[in-house]
Amino acid sequence: MQQTIKEILRNPSIGRELTVCGWVRTRRDSGSLSFVEINDGSCLSNLQVIADSGLENFADEIKKLSTGSSVEVCGTLVASPAKGQEVELQAGKVTVLGYADPATYPLQKKRHSFEFLRTITHLRPRTNALGAVSRLRSALGSGIHEFFADHGFYQVHTPIITTSDCEGAGEMFTVTALDTGQLGGPDPFANDFFGRRAGLTVSGQLQAEVYAMALGRVYTFGPTFRAENSNTSRHLAEFWMVEPEMAFCDLACNMDVAESLIQTVISKILDSCPDDLNLFDRFVAKGLVNKLETTCAQPFVRLTYTEAIDILQEAQGKGGREFEVPVSWGMDMQAEHERFLCEEVARRPVIVTNYPWAIKPFYMRLNEGEKTVAAMDILVPGIGEL
Amino acid sequence: MQQTIKEILRNPSIGRELTVCGWVRTRRDSGSLSFVEINDGSCLSNLQVIADSGLENFADEIKKLSTGSSVEVCGTLVASPAKGQEVELQAGKVTVLGYADPATYPLQKKRHSFEFLRTITHLRPRTNALGAVSRLRSALGSGIHEFFADHGFYQVHTPIITTSDCEGAGEMFTVTALDTGQLGGPDPFANDFFGRRAGLTVSGQLQAEVYAMALGRVYTFGPTFRAENSNTSRHLAEFWMVEPEMAFCDLACNMDVAESLIQTVISKILDSCPDDLNLFDRFVAKGLVNKLETTCAQPFVRLTYTEAIDILQEAQGKGGREFEVPVSWGMDMQAEHERFLCEEVARRPVIVTNYPWAIKPFYMRLNEGEKTVAAMDILVPGIGEL
Repeated sequence: MQQTIKEILRNPSIGRELTVCGWVRTRRDSGSLSFVEINDGSCLSNLQVIADSGLENFADEIKKLSTGSSVEVCGTLVASPAKGQEVELQAGKVTVLGYADPATYPLQKKRHSFEFLRTITHLRPRTNALGAVSRLRSALGSGIHEFFADHGFYQVHTPIITTSDCEGAGEMFTVTALDTGQLGGPDPFANDFFGRRAGLTVSGQLQAEVYAMALGRVYTFGPTFRAENSNTSRHLAEFWMVEPEMAFCDLACNMDVAESLIQTVISKILDSCPDDLNLFDRFVAKGLVNKLETTCAQPFVRLTYTEAIDILQEAQGKGGREFEVPVSWGMDMQAEHERFLCEEVARRPVIVTNYPWAIKPFYMRLNEGEKTVAAMDILVPGIGEL
Repeated sequence: MQQTIKEILRNPSIGRELTVCGWVRTRRDSGSLSFVEINDGSCLSNLQVIADSGLENFADEIKKLSTGSSVEVCGTLVASPAKGQEVELQAGKVTVLGYADPATYPLQKKRHSFEFLRTITHLRPRTNALGAVSRLRSALGSGIHEFFADHGFYQVHTPIITTSDCEGAGEMFTVTALDTGQLGGPDPFANDFFGRRAGLTVSGQLQAEVYAMALGRVYTFGPTFRAENSNTSRHLAEFWMVEPEMAFCDLACNMDVAESLIQTVISKILDSCPDDLNLFDRFVAKGLVNKLETTCAQPFVRLTYTEAIDILQEAQGKGGREFEVPVSWGMDMQAEHERFLCEEVARRPVIVTNYPWAIKPFYMRLNEGEKTVAAMDILVPGIGEL
């Protein structure tokens, strides 16, 4: 396969002949030269192509290239005199694969709003921001699979269509193979594909536990669904979720694995996707890279629920801190409490353990004393509960 | 984390103190010793634990261990005098985590039928066969992700719930958030979660193509659905599917990638899961390992559809071969033809290209001459079309 721009820039060998395909980001003319920035989506960076007027299709074709056009360029990689790029491609031949009419092609060399991009979902992955999101999401996925493989976990594919619910984690979508005309009546699903009402999974935990009790360490990583019509930044109808399950593991080991997963995966993207992360740091979420580096630089703080409540009550009392919901032992901590703990007290991720049994699902292991259960949540600055 | 039995057996260090947790497969007594085979699911192999009568809970607990019990054993790894195992664990302490009543625990030391195991899905991953299936499936998944990452592909998570169909690939399940009472009437879905009838994806190809036109090389690897009530070994209501899409790629490159993916992933499991594969070779699919090795040992045969039809017609004519469906150019080849080509002619996988346009989906690229399209199918001995 052809080298991608990412591969070329990672190991640039000056003087080498190569062929690059991509989409034109910009083109500008200067004297007898045309400078064509092309991007192939393999990385944020473009490769600058230098086309000179001696090329046979210079006037007829190359000078008609505009943003969004696709080209194949054969040329020689040379050191670039320009700032901000180590190399450029001196074109020997430029083949136009497709033009993009500048009068109608909606992406131009400027920042488009996310709202506008949402109206052209078939083109928005070509923007810097959405391209970076896509590459990061893929790198995070790879990192998760690698982490678990390195730690002796097997991936299990738990059912998406299921007749089990899970601890009331959320409203379920119903799945049916019936036609509209067959859907009336009190129990249409008795004649349906599965002979009863089936739905989309809200969690693979039940099945993952079965496999953990046989394979030892397993994880799921697949789509999960919620039918709540809730339009907040923390709710999605469909999302991909990771659920690890381990046999022969206690709460301390569980915390170690969770912390190690988060730090390992973040370290990996800091290492493999610096340009994409810097783009977000500059334009979308200032301080992002520093926050990610801090997350990896030191161990997470570990507090019991009781210790966390003590800290919050002290802040509320002596500290004079006002919370919208007053703090008392037994309460389900709100986002304001969680963020106070990790953003203002610890200034890094906090793992809270041993919650009162009454505010956690029925299946949590009861601790000695029978007031708390061996559960944990991870609180992260800027987000709250992960 | 504790070492798994797989890790211990891969790098056995004689004389080392270690702790192993697992489930008892068998236990037998001999003189003052009890031999306990434990398995932790990390691999097919058990680790033999030697417990002697000097252990304080020998009579009260260890001698009550039966198949399915779970234990934690601290001990010393020693060279084993027994055949078929390099090492065994000389127990210093055996902690019983849970007993399994032999009167009711359904798995015993014998082969159970798959039909019986289907009635105890919560326990069947503890059997050799289902454990091996699970480990292989996970290794195949890892291998697929690694292959694509190594070749510059990004994974995209395409929508599971969708309002698009795809080339009539199959019947779609409908997804709804409505209650039974709201499902009657001619168009109940106008008031549904998505404001119109939505269904479960039959293919992520459309969205993957969008991303390929921005990122260059992408793949999907996620669950896919068919609502056909067809109970054959080649139909599933829910299955995981891989769909690669590449920009700037022709049919030859597409074949190279497909062949390389199959050979790379199979080589990986031959290397990483030999015991699990040998189990199937011995008890489920004789000749499996040889077939997999053959698949990796040489390039696939590549034939155009026209060449394939010529070969089949010659076999039918001069060769006297009788097919249930007679061969003629323009036909959609049946399984009997596909298997003849790869099992009897090539004796290895065959890639057939350039099919008549009339038997392929509308979006295939028309070749020069306008009779055929730039499509390919891979035919594999024992399976037919992949």
